[in-house]
Amino acid sequence: MANITKKVSWSSRADESGATGEGTPLLNGSELPKYSRQLSGGGSIFQIGRLSTVDLEEEMTSDEDSLRGRPKEIPHNEKLLSLKFESLDYDNSENQLFLEEERRMSYMGFRCLEISRWVVCGLIGFMTGLIACFIDIVVEKLAGVKYQVVKQNIEKFTEVGGLSISLILWAVLNSAFVMVGAIIVAFFEPIAAGSGIPQIKCYLNGVKIPRVVRLKTLVVKVGGVICSVAGGLAVGKEGPMIHSGAVVAAGVSQGRSTSLKKDFKIFEYFRRDTEKRDFVSAGAAAGVSAAFGAPVGGVLFSLEEGASFWNQMLTWRIFFASMISTFTLNFFLSIYNNKTGDLSSPGLINFGRFESDSVAYNLYEIPLFIAMGAIGGLLGALFNILNYWLTIFRIRYVHRPCLQVMEAMLVAAVTATVSFAMIYFSNDCQPLGPDHAEEYPLQLFCADGEYNSMATAFFNTPERSVRSLFHNQPGTYNPLTLGMFTLTYFFLACWTYGLTVSAGVFIPSLLIGAAWGRLFGILLASITSSGSIWADPGKYALIGAAAQLGGIVRMTLSLTVIMVEATGNVTYGLPIMLVLMTAKIVGDYFVEGLYDIHIKLQSVPFLHWEAPATSHWLTAREVMSSPVTCFNRIEKVGTIVDVLSNTSTNHNGFPVVVHVAGSDEPAKLCGLILRSQLIVLLKHKVFVELARSRLTQRKLQLKDFRDAYPRFPPIQSIHVSQDERECMMDLTEFMNPTPYTVPQETSLPRVFKLFRALGLRHLVVVDDENKVVGLVTRKDLARYHLGKHGLEELQLAQT
Amino acid sequence: MANITKKVSWSSRADESGATGEGTPLLNGSELPKYSRQLSGGGSIFQIGRLSTVDLEEEMTSDEDSLRGRPKEIPHNEKLLSLKFESLDYDNSENQLFLEEERRMSYMGFRCLEISRWVVCGLIGFMTGLIACFIDIVVEKLAGVKYQVVKQNIEKFTEVGGLSISLILWAVLNSAFVMVGAIIVAFFEPIAAGSGIPQIKCYLNGVKIPRVVRLKTLVVKVGGVICSVAGGLAVGKEGPMIHSGAVVAAGVSQGRSTSLKKDFKIFEYFRRDTEKRDFVSAGAAAGVSAAFGAPVGGVLFSLEEGASFWNQMLTWRIFFASMISTFTLNFFLSIYNNKTGDLSSPGLINFGRFESDSVAYNLYEIPLFIAMGAIGGLLGALFNILNYWLTIFRIRYVHRPCLQVMEAMLVAAVTATVSFAMIYFSNDCQPLGPDHAEEYPLQLFCADGEYNSMATAFFNTPERSVRSLFHNQPGTYNPLTLGMFTLTYFFLACWTYGLTVSAGVFIPSLLIGAAWGRLFGILLASITSSGSIWADPGKYALIGAAAQLGGIVRMTLSLTVIMVEATGNVTYGLPIMLVLMTAKIVGDYFVEGLYDIHIKLQSVPFLHWEAPATSHWLTAREVMSSPVTCFNRIEKVGTIVDVLSNTSTNHNGFPVVVHVAGSDEPAKLCGLILRSQLIVLLKHKVFVELARSRLTQRKLQLKDFRDAYPRFPPIQSIHVSQDERECMMDLTEFMNPTPYTVPQETSLPRVFKLFRALGLRHLVVVDDENKVVGLVTRKDLARYHLGKHGLEELQLAQT
Repeated sequence: MANITKKVSWSSRADESGATGEGTPLLNGSELPKYSRQLSGGGSIFQIGRLSTVDLEEEMTSDEDSLRGRPKEIPHNEKLLSLKFESLDYDNSENQLFLEEERRMSYMGFRCLEISRWVVCGLIGFMTGLIACFIDIVVEKLAGVKYQVVKQNIEKFTEVGGLSISLILWAVLNSAFVMVGAIIVAFFEPIAAGSGIPQIKCYLNGVKIPRVVRLKTLVVKVGGVICSVAGGLAVGKEGPMIHSGAVVAAGVSQGRSTSLKKDFKIFEYFRRDTEKRDFVSAGAAAGVSAAFGAPVGGVLFSLEEGASFWNQMLTWRIFFASMISTFTLNFFLSIYNNKTGDLSSPGLINFGRFESDSVAYNLYEIPLFIAMGAIGGLLGALFNILNYWLTIFRIRYVHRPCLQVMEAMLVAAVTATVSFAMIYFSNDCQPLGPDHAEEYPLQLFCADGEYNSMATAFFNTPERSVRSLFHNQPGTYNPLTLGMFTLTYFFLACWTYGLTVSAGVFIPSLLIGAAWGRLFGILLASITSSGSIWADPGKYALIGAAAQLGGIVRMTLSLTVIMVEATGNVTYGLPIMLVLMTAKIVGDYFVEGLYDIHIKLQSVPFLHWEAPATSHWLTAREVMSSPVTCFNRIEKVGTIVDVLSNTSTNHNGFPVVVHVAGSDEPAKLCGLILRSQLIVLLKHKVFVELARSRLTQRKLQLKDFRDAYPRFPPIQSIHVSQDERECMMDLTEFMNPTPYTVPQETSLPRVFKLFRALGLRHLVVVDDENKVVGLVTRKDLARYHLGKHGLEELQLAQT
Repeated sequence: MANITKKVSWSSRADESGATGEGTPLLNGSELPKYSRQLSGGGSIFQIGRLSTVDLEEEMTSDEDSLRGRPKEIPHNEKLLSLKFESLDYDNSENQLFLEEERRMSYMGFRCLEISRWVVCGLIGFMTGLIACFIDIVVEKLAGVKYQVVKQNIEKFTEVGGLSISLILWAVLNSAFVMVGAIIVAFFEPIAAGSGIPQIKCYLNGVKIPRVVRLKTLVVKVGGVICSVAGGLAVGKEGPMIHSGAVVAAGVSQGRSTSLKKDFKIFEYFRRDTEKRDFVSAGAAAGVSAAFGAPVGGVLFSLEEGASFWNQMLTWRIFFASMISTFTLNFFLSIYNNKTGDLSSPGLINFGRFESDSVAYNLYEIPLFIAMGAIGGLLGALFNILNYWLTIFRIRYVHRPCLQVMEAMLVAAVTATVSFAMIYFSNDCQPLGPDHAEEYPLQLFCADGEYNSMATAFFNTPERSVRSLFHNQPGTYNPLTLGMFTLTYFFLACWTYGLTVSAGVFIPSLLIGAAWGRLFGILLASITSSGSIWADPGKYALIGAAAQLGGIVRMTLSLTVIMVEATGNVTYGLPIMLVLMTAKIVGDYFVEGLYDIHIKLQSVPFLHWEAPATSHWLTAREVMSSPVTCFNRIEKVGTIVDVLSNTSTNHNGFPVVVHVAGSDEPAKLCGLILRSQLIVLLKHKVFVELARSRLTQRKLQLKDFRDAYPRFPPIQSIHVSQDERECMMDLTEFMNPTPYTVPQETSLPRVFKLFRALGLRHLVVVDDENKVVGLVTRKDLARYHLGKHGLEELQLAQT
């Protein structure tokens, strides 16, 4: 697992920054350990990376040897930080063009903008709700047809024998659905795999995940999730809703579709990362809201994952989108169910009504809840560790699309087989009540008027199974059924997460938790004499579900609120919070949350809330990239083209400087310009000489930058003639004249705080004379993290 | 109302900053209008202030004339910004001492700190819950005794006539309670007046409101709120809980009480503004949680009002404090009510159980809800405008403590009289059911077996009245009763808010809204034929309550969640949100929220979420204070003492500079030092010369600064001899070597964002050679606000 490092190309270390990284493999690498040794005398445990520079190179060589002949996609472990991810610009480039536009705009103009923001949020909510509605109805239909067919087949063969044919039918049906889902994901849009929550977390964090908010991704995601849920995999359709909402938001807010080549010429003001992020937050919230009927939970999810800078109006707009989303879903589902106006299904998953008893739980049960939280934390950590190993395995061996599709089909077939076997060998027969809630009760070998209890759990969509575990009468399941179900479903879900299909992990987690929670409740009732108090296993199923989900995903406040809203009953707020808190504490002791594991395995430069606690001894001087490629205020076109074309550096931001006449010193900072801006300038040939010759030509406007956003052409696509190379470009008007700067002595936590709070992409480090000495980018900060043994430094790699 | 400007002392304009303000009354005042005219050609409406510099001075003179002879307390209108408020330091001063301490600390040390943060939050929640419990029980007891006495008296005199004696008894009892409450507030701790929410908003915003989080304030607040609620005023005990929670938090987190002169020597690490603010957020959340049984609402309240920088762990801790708080209250109330373990009263106000019907409301009702929201917005705006005028009147004429006490007593007596009259003249008799929920049913002139319906609203604590309006059977109140009640209570509540008593406005708002909402429901039922759909006036009472409260306080997400949690039913989430949104939009059209009005009337330099929309044309150069008083890295003690003693400037932060040898230019920035730090240095006589002579003496440590926090002695109390004045002080170790800086060209929104996101107190403006040219402080930013006619500039005054 450890030594799968691939071709670590140090030379291109500072991809994001304008620093020429050559020759500085690990900045001050030889000095740092000494420093750390000095300081660690005081009792602290510093460990910078695990290897010194020399060791590293040695290890790299041997790695390369051992990896020779492996296909190119071979990756990275969690001790690496990938250089392939770029950052988003959450800090506005306040150049002259921008300021002029803002200054021209009247107060009414700003009011109109504000109103259009609300309109966009309403649209986002509406469309997200529609998509949720569409997924729900199609999945219900498909799953209904499938279960009916299989059920009839099973009933047919139960009498005459030959149930293996039913098994094959079931397995083939499942595999067929999953095959379709896996093919579209693996071959058309691999980014649509999984729940999409890690990707959205990264996006909101400021990392540009390629293709994550495109229309194609949405289409594949929706199709994929329908197939995988209808294919009977141990997955949910809730997680993907969050991704879907985010894509909708990114699309609607731009007023155009680049994929469809359609520009509605509206919302042009919103065509920049800052504004787009706000809408994507709203979209993610709308997705959560539609998935769980939890508008407040959606807002909190967005805030917990994304907004580093809380803004009251923004929050209120996000809440609006969430409300519209759940309302739209609710309304259209009510029409579909012929109960127009009955707003009783606010989310894709509905926990059903819990008895709104004022004495919902007793004080004495609280220690039990905490114990369940601990169990959830342990099981969650186990789940995550198993899934981690599995993912490492997949990254190494299952990276060809056809292999991925085959694995998905295998899982689908195995799921059907295991389910069938569990049902087949179960002898838990329950009387079929007059008001049975089961949609597809399987009689199988049970007496007439009875049904197989295991089948209610396995032979059903996961959402329905969760509901039955929460609400079925005490005695519906016997303990053995629940135990067996927990065990098998746990491994199935663990195997399933990370497959190349669109699918979420929320519902399987809830289902596992509900099963063992109910088991817990039943056992409790049987060992205590006063059975009446513990009579309701459904309550324990709910607590177990919360514990398991918390143990796996480790979300905090937002998950509490989502669970409370899905339950529709605030009474359970305290126990759910206690359980989630315990699960998180216990789980964090062993391993990170599932989403964080997957983010780490992708080597994404993710910035957490705060700098590692023990990083105060690092300063900007140590973390920055240096020396920096700077441009002059009036720069030769050839120089610019050469720098931009240099693939080994691939910088994205360049400080603009003024040289002190006749001096060889580093020059004074006077601005910052982005690669994307330079590309647009080159494309429009904004050269000083040309401007003189054709004065009548219109000036470059902000609109030109917006039209190019977000898919700026590569430098290779721009033709610059040899004559033009000799021209000069005046960057004054286009650079950001007031980039944020820090002195070299600034401590890492301080740099981190500035960077994170303002959503920066580049932070210029200057000396006491305002001369550029370095540049700090996301990767320079994300490199440092708190490992088991104190501060560790990740390696950078061009994976 | 307009011309009550008092002695505007421009010379001391830059109180917070280190800028010598003399001679720069309005920075670039003569240039700005020209610039704005240039720009406003493009269609925008700029209006800088209402007066040019010259006009201003003229007006000031005439003001001074007209104000001659008025007492000193005369204030400020909302076009002023007071210089008397200082800021809090939410940005850590990362000086060498601090960094050394952080670097010495091991990973385990940080873990222990984290655990102690959780412990503190638990304690905060526990103690806030206890205080809420105490208030609740004492108020119930006192009000119970009072109403029993009055009821017996009324019953005695109903037959024989002479009810005026009952009236007098009631009025005297009320006035007596209120007198006690008003006296302790007016004479001992005036800051304890009102709900305290505006003060806590300011504190979390970063404004230092003197004495707001002291123990004495808490004691007076608790005593005051008990008296005013028991005294039958139209007030609630919920708002003050938020203030109480905040005080508890500020006290507990410091591990000592300065008032009681007791230092427990724990939590010393938390003795700085940054950490204290986090705990105060938790305390405010715990207060909301205890008041309304709304832990999530509490967290959102704190975030909405305070945290500019969202941190996941912090939020989670705040949520923990909230949960503990509501749980503690619930638990102790259950013991008090002899139902130990029955956790059914999570908050001070309990909306009671709404029928958890899945068809709680119909789609067709949504327009009605929105209409109710609009009504709420209108009535709220009316309330706020009336209260605004009243407050202006009070500020001008009712500023002596004894007058304030008399006004409070008058209101109490009038409240009793009006209530009595309403009950007396009401002929709304209702049959006394077997399961009547009324605690004190007044029969008065009704037939036997009936009770006076008006009395259920007036002759009761407001919390109970709200509950009866929500839940009593349809037909319990007749429309006239509700109309009269709404009218009288509206004016009573409006008169009451702003009295010198501790009291909140939440409950009166809810009560007014519930009354007209119920009336709305009844009228609706009577005009529609299909009475069955609109049968439940209680639902309309709830919506009306939300609308009225939203119209008055204009909170958004947090209020929605608080209402939903208090209702205990998420079904009403959408209507409540719609109603609050409508009420806010409608209300904002006329006037700001009540809390904001009161903040403005206090001329507090409050920073909103964003800079005014049309402020892009202002730059740091225009807003900064300049020139700045700077210190050298090694400075003469005499100079420092003189600068600190200068009462006309009263600066709090000073850039530390290095002079270029032999040059007269502004010097290069190398750090920033605070007045409080200098005071400690002077107190400990950290002089270069002394350090040489007594090398054995211990070095100054961070502990010395923490011991002095937060009540640093004034400079006058520090004796510096003539010899010592000639000594030098080396500031290197104590200054913050890496203050945040911006170039002069930075636009106001950009400066604002940096300032707000990082919670700064001083922001140094430098030129392109890193030389200090100015200093931006809170007042420089808060001065600009968006008025009816575009950007306006507030005047600064030493009120």
